[in-house]
Amino acid sequence: MTDESMSYREKAYALLQADAEKIIQLIRVQMDHLTMPQCPVYEEVLDTQMFGLSREIDFAVRLGLVEAKDGKALLDRLERELSALHEAVAKKRVR
Amino acid sequence: MTDESMSYREKAYALLQADAEKIIQLIRVQMDHLTMPQCPVYEEVLDTQMFGLSREIDFAVRLGLVEAKDGKALLDRLERELSALHEAVAKKRVR
Repeated sequence: MTDESMSYREKAYALLQADAEKIIQLIRVQMDHLTMPQCPVYEEVLDTQMFGLSREIDFAVRLGLVEAKDGKALLDRLERELSALHEAVAKKRVR
Repeated sequence: MTDESMSYREKAYALLQADAEKIIQLIRVQMDHLTMPQCPVYEEVLDTQMFGLSREIDFAVRLGLVEAKDGKALLDRLERELSALHEAVAKKRVR
């Protein structure tokens, strides 16, 4: 593998991770501003963002820049973080 | 520019063009099967696909594999082709 393809790979993965992080931030901001996880608009925003990211990952995998298993792991991790966020908010509301 | 980065560029552009072509095919099939362009489900499918493609293009641009103007030209061309398809169907209905 040349340095150049290595740098495309690194850049692709860094971009995908940054986009996943942006989704977390977006959801955090929505939660802080009283938009309930049960709200259809919230769900739509989240679905749209997750779909967009999954398309980027799929594209990177088809390009040969990201391994399919790494792309899947990135999405799985994001889903776990979102679940944890949801739980944290639900607990806060119960108190 | 090395051969390797050239091949990533070519591959990225070819993938995006193939995805644009898939959208055209999808819309053509929907039109052939009586789903009206005025139908909300049709619009939603089209919006979702266009959003997905625009995210792929944006990702390729940020990676440095596709020029922003080429990405925009690809989307513009797809939109023109979809308009032409809509017009063709509308004319058929009038007859």
